[in-house]
Amino acid sequence: MPDPRRRQHQEAVTRQRLGQPETGWRQRWYTIIFEADTREGRTFDLALLVAIVASVMVVMLDSMAAVNQRLGTAFTVLEWSFTLLFTTEYVMRILVVRRPLRYALSFYGIIDFISIMPTWLAVFLPELHFLIDVRLLRLLRVFRILKLTVYFEEAEILYRALLNSRRKIFVFLGAVFIITVILGTVMYVVEGPEHGFRSIPLSMYWAVVTLTTTGFGDMVPKTALGQFITSLTILLGYGIIAFPTGIVGAELAASILKRPLTTRTCTHCLTEGHEADSMYCKHCGSPLPEYQNDRPEVPGGRDGTPAP
Amino acid sequence: MPDPRRRQHQEAVTRQRLGQPETGWRQRWYTIIFEADTREGRTFDLALLVAIVASVMVVMLDSMAAVNQRLGTAFTVLEWSFTLLFTTEYVMRILVVRRPLRYALSFYGIIDFISIMPTWLAVFLPELHFLIDVRLLRLLRVFRILKLTVYFEEAEILYRALLNSRRKIFVFLGAVFIITVILGTVMYVVEGPEHGFRSIPLSMYWAVVTLTTTGFGDMVPKTALGQFITSLTILLGYGIIAFPTGIVGAELAASILKRPLTTRTCTHCLTEGHEADSMYCKHCGSPLPEYQNDRPEVPGGRDGTPAP
Amino acid sequence: MPDPRRRQHQEAVTRQRLGQPETGWRQRWYTIIFEADTREGRTFDLALLVAIVASVMVVMLDSMAAVNQRLGTAFTVLEWSFTLLFTTEYVMRILVVRRPLRYALSFYGIIDFISIMPTWLAVFLPELHFLIDVRLLRLLRVFRILKLTVYFEEAEILYRALLNSRRKIFVFLGAVFIITVILGTVMYVVEGPEHGFRSIPLSMYWAVVTLTTTGFGDMVPKTALGQFITSLTILLGYGIIAFPTGIVGAELAASILKRPLTTRTCTHCLTEGHEADSMYCKHCGSPLPEYQNDRPEVPGGRDGTPAP
Amino acid sequence: MPDPRRRQHQEAVTRQRLGQPETGWRQRWYTIIFEADTREGRTFDLALLVAIVASVMVVMLDSMAAVNQRLGTAFTVLEWSFTLLFTTEYVMRILVVRRPLRYALSFYGIIDFISIMPTWLAVFLPELHFLIDVRLLRLLRVFRILKLTVYFEEAEILYRALLNSRRKIFVFLGAVFIITVILGTVMYVVEGPEHGFRSIPLSMYWAVVTLTTTGFGDMVPKTALGQFITSLTILLGYGIIAFPTGIVGAELAASILKRPLTTRTCTHCLTEGHEADSMYCKHCGSPLPEYQNDRPEVPGGRDGTPAP
Repeated sequence: MPDPRRRQHQEAVTRQRLGQPETGWRQRWYTIIFEADTREGRTFDLALLVAIVASVMVVMLDSMAAVNQRLGTAFTVLEWSFTLLFTTEYVMRILVVRRPLRYALSFYGIIDFISIMPTWLAVFLPELHFLIDVRLLRLLRVFRILKLTVYFEEAEILYRALLNSRRKIFVFLGAVFIITVILGTVMYVVEGPEHGFRSIPLSMYWAVVTLTTTGFGDMVPKTALGQFITSLTILLGYGIIAFPTGIVGAELAASILKRPLTTRTCTHCLTEGHEADSMYCKHCGSPLPEYQNDRPEVPGGRDGTPAP
Repeated sequence: MPDPRRRQHQEAVTRQRLGQPETGWRQRWYTIIFEADTREGRTFDLALLVAIVASVMVVMLDSMAAVNQRLGTAFTVLEWSFTLLFTTEYVMRILVVRRPLRYALSFYGIIDFISIMPTWLAVFLPELHFLIDVRLLRLLRVFRILKLTVYFEEAEILYRALLNSRRKIFVFLGAVFIITVILGTVMYVVEGPEHGFRSIPLSMYWAVVTLTTTGFGDMVPKTALGQFITSLTILLGYGIIAFPTGIVGAELAASILKRPLTTRTCTHCLTEGHEADSMYCKHCGSPLPEYQNDRPEVPGGRDGTPAP
Repeated sequence: MPDPRRRQHQEAVTRQRLGQPETGWRQRWYTIIFEADTREGRTFDLALLVAIVASVMVVMLDSMAAVNQRLGTAFTVLEWSFTLLFTTEYVMRILVVRRPLRYALSFYGIIDFISIMPTWLAVFLPELHFLIDVRLLRLLRVFRILKLTVYFEEAEILYRALLNSRRKIFVFLGAVFIITVILGTVMYVVEGPEHGFRSIPLSMYWAVVTLTTTGFGDMVPKTALGQFITSLTILLGYGIIAFPTGIVGAELAASILKRPLTTRTCTHCLTEGHEADSMYCKHCGSPLPEYQNDRPEVPGGRDGTPAP
Repeated sequence: MPDPRRRQHQEAVTRQRLGQPETGWRQRWYTIIFEADTREGRTFDLALLVAIVASVMVVMLDSMAAVNQRLGTAFTVLEWSFTLLFTTEYVMRILVVRRPLRYALSFYGIIDFISIMPTWLAVFLPELHFLIDVRLLRLLRVFRILKLTVYFEEAEILYRALLNSRRKIFVFLGAVFIITVILGTVMYVVEGPEHGFRSIPLSMYWAVVTLTTTGFGDMVPKTALGQFITSLTILLGYGIIAFPTGIVGAELAASILKRPLTTRTCTHCLTEGHEADSMYCKHCGSPLPEYQNDRPEVPGGRDGTPAP
């Protein structure tokens, strides 16, 4: 249930912030590039998305030796075309807004910039050219075009759960870091370079891989003591590593369970918190006003539908 | 708590939808094939289940080189027998219902169809013949025979938890996908083909395996920088990957905790599920009988205590 | 806070069920072997525990080649000593109770029996002798001696959470099984015997190892298609595998959250559910009777202490 | 929300416990070393943190063969400098407090001591010198300096969740231990030394690695029976291993959801934390002001809404 009014409101805010030009070609292009309401605006955004996906595909395929040998030159041409295209688009965006610096420093402005840099920098540092894949971040715009604003709200729930847990997660990461250093050191002493634990930092890498139960198997304890310590560590670490899931799950459960059913109030005795399908006050028995659900995507909680 | 009336009701609905023939052999066979109430019907269903399991076992054993060499021919014969049997059954099902298309396009109709196709297609494309294992999906019928409808309800709870979380899960999968592409690219640049990261898609495969803490170990970072990035990624990814568990757990907890707290029924309009502290029916406004909590270990639930 | 009265009650029940002999040496030995209240009884139980641990240690050490070569004969002697000891004990238990069959078929009776069988059977089937490790189950008696009955209650909470989730877990296991068969078949077709997927059952083993994110790495996809399917599978499987944690966590959360704070009732207005530290009724303001917490190990919920 | 008054209060408590000297140089140094309010005190603490991190870095780098060859002597000198520095600091701490033993036996006192021991002991036992990494535990002081006392509260929530679950976790670990022994024995019998399961303790190490879904892959089942047992074990074990996450998550969810909903304060006796529907103070019985919830969508908020 994406809300068109909401998006239009957001675009008005953006217009305000970046300073929409009032007249002339800049005003026209502003509408095409920054908004998605006119037919031209939508066509532009869709073309942009296709170009982004295509350019990332090119980089991916280019990295495969078999493909690269046959189509290498074509891909280089394509990559430069995309980069020129995106660079032009970036310059246009700078030109048509009245406060270019504000755009350049905005979230999307920075992503737009770093998505064109790698090809240019690759002239000097060839390895960098693969980093064009950060262009993928530009796909976040897809939410705007497809009017999937409801996803933003879900993302916000996840984000808020993460935000609420940030201190617990910092404490947890601090504990994991200290455990990693100590475990890495102990295993370096116990197993030693002859069993692949060649240095403490390498042992710490192993400790992270083990504590998180990833277990690549490229380094494994060979001595009985090392295996014993590893067994204990995995069990202890498993308990510790249960925390992120527990923390996040608890925050999410709290956010789901604390969702109010409705805020309908009895006009007679002022009792609040009636269910979405109640028609009479549960406290005094007088009729309730009709239920108007004004928050469309959390309709009356998860088990209620608006009463007729 | 399997409910026989419930199953009979479902069968009546099915009969209505597919159009049960009123008389003759088709009516007789309809009862045998589609229903499970008569002795013949039950025998038919049981024989079917045994045939399904047996035919899947044959395919499995046939794939083992040692068994295949000794019993290959016997297995080919068996496989064709089962396929002919299931084809006959499918044709019968089509014949005895009055609206064959509706059956053919129903959930079970499609499963029945794709479970006989592989053997026929394998005449042209030999590899396909192993796909007969999709026949296993036909085992879902077991629920009908064993009257395990209560399991459907549990499955429905799990399914609804999944459905409620679908947007969160899409946001999560989108985030994982973008992380996978960027991480795959970074590792391809850092480690390179000489350490097994031969292309970006291959590195992305590694990224998925690592982020989910599966850690096959077929590709592992060899450079110090790669190991450092891997350590960070695992820790960060572990936090991200905690979300599915958290999301699903939270939804399940919500569904368990929101289970109606009382079974109080309005003596006037027979509406059930009033809250523990309600004094008037939320549906018709007539007074409720006093609340008698007879389930002591869920005392008063989470938000209400019995009114005095 | 183990409760001695509680244990004595349990012993009385046991005495009732197994039939305690009234007089003579059998009565004396019954007290020593089956009860833990007299000094002799406690000494016997402790000696038994030590013997159990020692006998399991012997089996473990015996399996290590280096130790076995040096101490093999000594260990064989020890093992037979322990087995003779436990056999004597078992015979004694049978002799001193009045209803031997009831003991033999009780939970502990069966464990006691299967913990002496392996050595005797090993005379014929040498491999079986390692199975003496099931003796470890006898350690469950430790709870009785150390009066750790409170742990039984915690185990019961876990057990009940498991019991409440049993149908969800069956549905989940069924889904995993069907996914395993289909995935195993697909990977057998895609990767084939030349990449280690030698048969469908072997591919199913790989599918379980992969779906659960264990990832041994002994079999890994080599083809691009196989790696793509694996990536998808891991992500999808990760979602599915999140269910056990979610199910168990949700049940546990429900059992923790539904714990009543207290059942204190206001003697004036009969409002229930006051907190453990409340001194006046929250509804009518009249004084509350003093709080008597009679369940010592769940003291007043998790945030309250008895009022003075 | 770091609370300066709170920290000052803690320092006052520490001063009380350790016995702050009243006058002279000891009083001056006490302020510098133990407190963080004066400019000197803060400078000292910061310098200490830098020294701790630097000394741990030295040990880590020293363990890398390439670095060690080039800078080994310099690192030995640095390490001894740090150790002398920390030893001096420890002696100073002992000198300036009036009750040295109480400091020496306090949490930080013990950490301070064991962080200087390894270098001294390494004169006799060279391997021990890597254990200086325990110095990292001294970084816990960082919380004091950065006034991050709020993190202590979050850590306390995690700690209490762990504490509340301790019995469940012991029961769980006991079950895992018994499963590990039995599974280890079974796999030793089934797979045997020729497939790498060389002894029962080694098989137990494998069982822990497998049950926790770590899956190093250094030991894998080779026989069909072994693979079948492994598949079952992983699935069963996955269910069991879901418990720590579930337990911890449930406790955390309970602590989040049970957070007091209001900060309503009795105007008479100043007791806080009344429930939203209370009408009389639970402590003194005087009427409470009416409850005004002004933040509707996080009802009661996560830390309380101001009383009117």
